Amino acid sequence: MKEIRVFSPASIANLSCGYDILGVCLDKIGDEITVRKTTKKGISIKKITGHELSNDISLNVAGLAASALLKNVKVNCGFEIDIHKGIKPGSGIGSSAASSAGTVYAINKLIGEPLSDNQLIYFASKGEIASSGTIHSDNVSAVLMGGFTFVRNSSEKDFIKLDYPNDLVFSIIHPKIEIKTKDSRSIIKNQVSLNDMIQQSANLGALVHALNKKDYELIGRSLDDRIIEPVRSILIPKFSEIKSSSIEAGALGCGISGSGPSVFSLCRGMDQAKIVSKVMKKVYDKIKLDYEIHLSKVNDKGIKIIDFF
Amino acid sequence: MKEIRVFSPASIANLSCGYDILGVCLDKIGDEITVRKTTKKGISIKKITGHELSNDISLNVAGLAASALLKNVKVNCGFEIDIHKGIKPGSGIGSSAASSAGTVYAINKLIGEPLSDNQLIYFASKGEIASSGTIHSDNVSAVLMGGFTFVRNSSEKDFIKLDYPNDLVFSIIHPKIEIKTKDSRSIIKNQVSLNDMIQQSANLGALVHALNKKDYELIGRSLDDRIIEPVRSILIPKFSEIKSSSIEAGALGCGISGSGPSVFSLCRGMDQAKIVSKVMKKVYDKIKLDYEIHLSKVNDKGIKIIDFF
Repeated sequence: MKEIRVFSPASIANLSCGYDILGVCLDKIGDEITVRKTTKKGISIKKITGHELSNDISLNVAGLAASALLKNVKVNCGFEIDIHKGIKPGSGIGSSAASSAGTVYAINKLIGEPLSDNQLIYFASKGEIASSGTIHSDNVSAVLMGGFTFVRNSSEKDFIKLDYPNDLVFSIIHPKIEIKTKDSRSIIKNQVSLNDMIQQSANLGALVHALNKKDYELIGRSLDDRIIEPVRSILIPKFSEIKSSSIEAGALGCGISGSGPSVFSLCRGMDQAKIVSKVMKKVYDKIKLDYEIHLSKVNDKGIKIIDFF
Repeated sequence: MKEIRVFSPASIANLSCGYDILGVCLDKIGDEITVRKTTKKGISIKKITGHELSNDISLNVAGLAASALLKNVKVNCGFEIDIHKGIKPGSGIGSSAASSAGTVYAINKLIGEPLSDNQLIYFASKGEIASSGTIHSDNVSAVLMGGFTFVRNSSEKDFIKLDYPNDLVFSIIHPKIEIKTKDSRSIIKNQVSLNDMIQQSANLGALVHALNKKDYELIGRSLDDRIIEPVRSILIPKFSEIKSSSIEAGALGCGISGSGPSVFSLCRGMDQAKIVSKVMKKVYDKIKLDYEIHLSKVNDKGIKIIDFF
């Protein structure tokens, strides 16, 4: 195999109660990553289309992830990367994770798959430093494993794929304002109260149980964030109205997607998600704020190979 | 039914990563609670044997739990309670929870079971105020539901029974020193760092998943407490030696039982638990500290009726 083209999907991190822990892989929206072997060693990003980003491999998440991988694997060739961004950077649905995960996945395929999923997640996480300033694996684990994923410990490479009901659908609205992950992380307090910690972790554990047991009501009760959302939601126009009207319209829960500004509502079934997406739209139509809206089932497969030769 | 006698078992709360959230019900060790209807209204504690405790219903956990229940249910009689303490108060294996849970369970049976498990857990939790100064339901939920239990939210009466493998065995050592739950709670810091919170809740969610999936290695990795154990373990003689030697001897994990001073080691199978209990004993034998040791399977049933008439 000399060249491979993959579709690397968008994802939602955090999911209210699982800051830096939970992720879920989305359908249809994503980046297209092409990687080809070169005789010249080293990595270069040849082309970025769709959205503007640096092609400097020490600034671009894909370059950073590829470099991290190649520091740990011996190869006799180099790699050229083309990225077509289907996900707008800074939208909160894992734009950087799609590029970094897609790139390490593609390179691993080209060199005969010496690396496990967990290793790929770890290297892709290294790319996340460029966008957030810290290593976090919640988005990249979702992209690389598919489905709902759970990061027990990034540095121990301890990543878990959760069980979940197959009729969950996300309605995601992206208000056209940009929040940099770095900025959105910097406003979060470094200390939390013990009581908030107890409630937050109780919600997380209950969500893991509820997804496994297909207990939709408990899924809804567990999608509750006492720590991050109260702070970050300030940056998102009309967040509380989006949330309350989504839940009133039947969503199981609603929260900030990743570091925002996208907001997700989790619904049972596509019909419910369509109803909820209408009420979400209405909130921004009323204040004439431009937005994009996505409806997405859970993508259980993660990255998809488009073609190779 | 005029009188009922129940066996109300001991329990382990917290289980390392689930402070105020996780509980597990133990076998064999427990209190015996007898409740009989009286024509005279009100509650009285007639007899306490086994260990010394106040029989003032406003100071005794059983009295407080019974009072909380009877404020919410109309009855035309009173109740007399006899308590035989099989669990030493202050040992860290749910002494107060056994008495309060056993009492509300018995009263509910005597009055025709108008209350659900979740309601009983809530009333029994009110008894816990006497021993700890706060409402917490981790022990009482385990006693009333049996098995491994998870408190999502006490005031919302949201209690969950978890799935778990049936070959888990606890080895519990109780060094004969007394720590009052109230004192043991007071040394815990009210603020935790965001990073510690993330790791703690990741461990909790992973443990829920691991118990469900019978993933013993993940159970072990998840039994890790970054927040409470480093502080509370100071009060427990030779804690780190007990822990390291238990794990070296094959325990999946080891931590403080409830607020201590008892220490639990979780093992796969009775043979393993016996080996681990020997190394736990050795640590206290070496320093000539008196102790009790218990081996216990997980008690899936919880409270057991002994007799009634």
